[in-house]
Amino acid sequence: MKKVGIIMGSDSDLPVIKKAVDVLREFDIPFEVHVYSAHRTPEEARDFSINARKNGFGVIIAAAGMAAHLAGAIAANTTLPVIGIPCKSAAFDGMDALLSTVMMPSGIPVATVAVDGGKNAALLAAEIIAVSDDELAAALDRKRAADAAAVLKKDEDIMSRL
Amino acid sequence: MKKVGIIMGSDSDLPVIKKAVDVLREFDIPFEVHVYSAHRTPEEARDFSINARKNGFGVIIAAAGMAAHLAGAIAANTTLPVIGIPCKSAAFDGMDALLSTVMMPSGIPVATVAVDGGKNAALLAAEIIAVSDDELAAALDRKRAADAAAVLKKDEDIMSRL
Amino acid sequence: MKKVGIIMGSDSDLPVIKKAVDVLREFDIPFEVHVYSAHRTPEEARDFSINARKNGFGVIIAAAGMAAHLAGAIAANTTLPVIGIPCKSAAFDGMDALLSTVMMPSGIPVATVAVDGGKNAALLAAEIIAVSDDELAAALDRKRAADAAAVLKKDEDIMSRL
Amino acid sequence: MKKVGIIMGSDSDLPVIKKAVDVLREFDIPFEVHVYSAHRTPEEARDFSINARKNGFGVIIAAAGMAAHLAGAIAANTTLPVIGIPCKSAAFDGMDALLSTVMMPSGIPVATVAVDGGKNAALLAAEIIAVSDDELAAALDRKRAADAAAVLKKDEDIMSRL
Amino acid sequence: MKKVGIIMGSDSDLPVIKKAVDVLREFDIPFEVHVYSAHRTPEEARDFSINARKNGFGVIIAAAGMAAHLAGAIAANTTLPVIGIPCKSAAFDGMDALLSTVMMPSGIPVATVAVDGGKNAALLAAEIIAVSDDELAAALDRKRAADAAAVLKKDEDIMSRL
Amino acid sequence: MKKVGIIMGSDSDLPVIKKAVDVLREFDIPFEVHVYSAHRTPEEARDFSINARKNGFGVIIAAAGMAAHLAGAIAANTTLPVIGIPCKSAAFDGMDALLSTVMMPSGIPVATVAVDGGKNAALLAAEIIAVSDDELAAALDRKRAADAAAVLKKDEDIMSRL
Amino acid sequence: MKKVGIIMGSDSDLPVIKKAVDVLREFDIPFEVHVYSAHRTPEEARDFSINARKNGFGVIIAAAGMAAHLAGAIAANTTLPVIGIPCKSAAFDGMDALLSTVMMPSGIPVATVAVDGGKNAALLAAEIIAVSDDELAAALDRKRAADAAAVLKKDEDIMSRL
Amino acid sequence: MKKVGIIMGSDSDLPVIKKAVDVLREFDIPFEVHVYSAHRTPEEARDFSINARKNGFGVIIAAAGMAAHLAGAIAANTTLPVIGIPCKSAAFDGMDALLSTVMMPSGIPVATVAVDGGKNAALLAAEIIAVSDDELAAALDRKRAADAAAVLKKDEDIMSRL
Repeated sequence: MKKVGIIMGSDSDLPVIKKAVDVLREFDIPFEVHVYSAHRTPEEARDFSINARKNGFGVIIAAAGMAAHLAGAIAANTTLPVIGIPCKSAAFDGMDALLSTVMMPSGIPVATVAVDGGKNAALLAAEIIAVSDDELAAALDRKRAADAAAVLKKDEDIMSRL
Repeated sequence: MKKVGIIMGSDSDLPVIKKAVDVLREFDIPFEVHVYSAHRTPEEARDFSINARKNGFGVIIAAAGMAAHLAGAIAANTTLPVIGIPCKSAAFDGMDALLSTVMMPSGIPVATVAVDGGKNAALLAAEIIAVSDDELAAALDRKRAADAAAVLKKDEDIMSRL
Repeated sequence: MKKVGIIMGSDSDLPVIKKAVDVLREFDIPFEVHVYSAHRTPEEARDFSINARKNGFGVIIAAAGMAAHLAGAIAANTTLPVIGIPCKSAAFDGMDALLSTVMMPSGIPVATVAVDGGKNAALLAAEIIAVSDDELAAALDRKRAADAAAVLKKDEDIMSRL
Repeated sequence: MKKVGIIMGSDSDLPVIKKAVDVLREFDIPFEVHVYSAHRTPEEARDFSINARKNGFGVIIAAAGMAAHLAGAIAANTTLPVIGIPCKSAAFDGMDALLSTVMMPSGIPVATVAVDGGKNAALLAAEIIAVSDDELAAALDRKRAADAAAVLKKDEDIMSRL
Repeated sequence: MKKVGIIMGSDSDLPVIKKAVDVLREFDIPFEVHVYSAHRTPEEARDFSINARKNGFGVIIAAAGMAAHLAGAIAANTTLPVIGIPCKSAAFDGMDALLSTVMMPSGIPVATVAVDGGKNAALLAAEIIAVSDDELAAALDRKRAADAAAVLKKDEDIMSRL
Repeated sequence: MKKVGIIMGSDSDLPVIKKAVDVLREFDIPFEVHVYSAHRTPEEARDFSINARKNGFGVIIAAAGMAAHLAGAIAANTTLPVIGIPCKSAAFDGMDALLSTVMMPSGIPVATVAVDGGKNAALLAAEIIAVSDDELAAALDRKRAADAAAVLKKDEDIMSRL
Repeated sequence: MKKVGIIMGSDSDLPVIKKAVDVLREFDIPFEVHVYSAHRTPEEARDFSINARKNGFGVIIAAAGMAAHLAGAIAANTTLPVIGIPCKSAAFDGMDALLSTVMMPSGIPVATVAVDGGKNAALLAAEIIAVSDDELAAALDRKRAADAAAVLKKDEDIMSRL
Repeated sequence: MKKVGIIMGSDSDLPVIKKAVDVLREFDIPFEVHVYSAHRTPEEARDFSINARKNGFGVIIAAAGMAAHLAGAIAANTTLPVIGIPCKSAAFDGMDALLSTVMMPSGIPVATVAVDGGKNAALLAAEIIAVSDDELAAALDRKRAADAAAVLKKDEDIMSRL
């Protein structure tokens, strides 16, 4: 199976990444995690991206806050799908990271998920790999069904909580 | 090759979709386009989504404006990757559509691109299909190289335009 | 009397819903509460909406956060009045939920109240039922008078608190 | 049938109100239109609101721009359902009017629709009246079906337009 | 000396008003404080405003949050200068109150100060009264000088705090 | 009668100032207009402010766009009431100018009106002068009555325009 | 004299750059202009930055729109001062570019000027070079004086234009 | 070596300034810190700015919150490069300070860094001085390398923390 590369711009983004890792582990999807900054270690971010496809990666997830260039910087160096997670930092509730991640110019897409959306980034990565992996697709469908059942379980009890 | 499904919430989004279609045609990626509204034709949007994988689709692109629920409504009914294009409409420069598309709750990701980002949505769809299609991946790399060459061509001439 | 249906997208919205329930109980308006997610349990949300009128509902209140599609998804399946409560979540102070709820396309209105406005949603539901129920209208007027009296009571004491 | 009162804060809002009037005429719902400003003619706005219920109104629609107090000022004087239309004016794309209309304090709800949402305001008014009028409810359902058919007609033709 | 009227929409705004009262007391400016809501006690707010000039008021300060209509509602009923204080509440950091207060339509000005700007509202009221009161003007100048001296005192010590 | 000083940061703000001048002329209020920039001619802006009271001014209106420091810079040098008009410029619909004008720190108030609110700035200046001028107060009341009559004239005709 | 490097992300930013070039020519500051995209030609942008200091550059100006990574990408590869110009593009009035440019993480500053601020970017570059060039500093002071004189010339004529 | 002047508008900005001072000390760059308010002590702020160049300053850093005029007020009185730090205060997460600082009119640039960006302001000041100081430039490069090494150290350990 293709691996998922996960890059965070700073280890302060670890709690967001942890949620992504949990999902990938749940689906037995191989992954590799790195701390590479688009600004402080541009060479490493670039080398990782340029070689990602030939190193067996199928998708890259990049998480960063503030002027969040990481996902775009990676996408500039690969045609693998790149998923961007805008991280909330001290100001603007993550709006700076959201706009820096999603408003990419024509030619270089970044698949952006919600602010701090570590879990959905990993699910999206799984969905992308599952396009050519029916078993994984079935596992994703089962998780959806389980999620739905959990909601309906709460629905059953709700009147008693009011 | 897996097909790309393109759904627009209203035919006023056609100019945005046209840019996506041009990219898919350039890469010979099969696609199907529909006008289904999450609100006015919820049944058709739902039926399309539920059956998309078994009908040979690999990715779905959904474009909508204002309270842009379309991508999320489709993602709720499939575990295929769903790409959302927030469309600019009369107010807020597309910020309403962007937040309605990208801020999905945990469990149901939407891969969001820039406001009116038809071209990037199609490129992202191509990148997703290319994860298991080396020929398409190579074609994407060639396009990147051509885009870079076009920029450098402009760089050569720029001093003469100032 | 027609019933009020209350749907929340997640039980994390319970504190907001509690305020709505308190109002409905105060006015002896029958209601039913459900946890249905537009994204995780789309079928249940849809079935509830399609059958709401014939099941004796007169108004539906829907509360959700982030890309808050719930009210719109319900409104897409019924011509009963649907009241949307945008809920504040981790980012953007509820602006994402507000725009996702209020900026509905032509044809499918959602009656939107303030962020986390559980109490006003229930009062609005009561006002809607009271259009054809003079007794309830009189009760609403009495509550208004009581609210005014409470403000004036505070006005009397205010100088002593400064 | 209960009448719909329509108040606009300035006759510059006429194009928005026109869309509401067209809907009410389509459904044969009686209505009355006034130009009353919350700030320039507060007495008239107040008198209209205080007497609206006994004058046969069932719902009031109020449209205003900028610091859009009109809907709130009317709601302060009646327990009829009040629908607010935030109108776009010279600055902020209508965000000023949206927040001024929707963020009402506890006790005085305003049912807010989208910026410049004249059509949806009238549909919501019709839905409110239809709560106790099965014939109108059926007419609303027929309009929904017609809207859906119009979308599907566009869906049929869409491939030929690309 | 003309009195300053201070109206707060809710006693939750008391901490903001307290800062205004402290300034007025410091300058021996007579004032009267009321809790009147534009929405819950519109009659009292209106009666106060209509009679304010003949009751000896020279300026009115109005503080409110959310869809902050209070200052505008008062300004609609008097040609005395009305100072609006937008108060921060649960959402949007006071942006809702700021836009609701400052974006008044032509004809009815509200002199808006910063979010939660109780102190500056009172200083502005003092400045307005001082236009025809040289003694008060001199007192305001003395306060400015004292404020400047306090800043310069901090400047002297600052290197030792680094 | 005290004069009104009007300062604009750039003559591109002339259309906004023109509306203010028209109001002052209507009420026969003496005024003086200057183009002084807080940034390009700080000395002149400062000298004007420091000497304004002794030169017979009662109120100062300052209009500026972008990082609109003009009103604050003037207010820093006088305890006369300073009215700020935030002007819309190329970006952000005037939000930059609004926040730069209204969010003044404690101690130095600026009475801020709506974006491009030239007319209301002059009316507010007139209201401030009228605090100690009963004749002007009466003239302001007459204008209010005339404005109301104009709205009601439009109300009479409105049904014929629909 | 050290050269100023000017990089634009796309030749659609040419009008903004033109204003910068005019200023540099006015002060006889040597410059070089390039079209390099952070995303489409990352290698060229990087090579330029890495070698800028040894190639005789003293300051780099970078202009880009949308998710404007260009200034940050350049700053990541040099310790020369980098001036970022956020350019307005189709959505959000340049707010996306402003936040993407200014909200840089600790360690990698970008000196950000106003949206589309080509002229100020060049003046800032000149000011930076003038830190060690008294002649240029004097020329900058003369320009300031000329700008002030131009404002005062407008001040003289302003009453005649009202 | 030229000195760096650091001005804060209020000593509540001290924590932000502390980060700047630490950087300057690390690089042995001489500096001077002042508490001068653009509004409360305009004379001192002005005198400092007018005399800064001849007093041996090469760069000025100004930090302020709310309607943050300080950097602009200083820049109006000198052609030295002025770096503005927008400080977060009670409302709007620093957006008010950011727009007040960065949106300067043509002719008077302010080099704006991120909200509360004390460290980057000092680094930018160092980069500016280093334009004509090769030793300092080399020290900045060494710090960059050390920062990169710290990131890579975290990268080594990251898998063990997941």
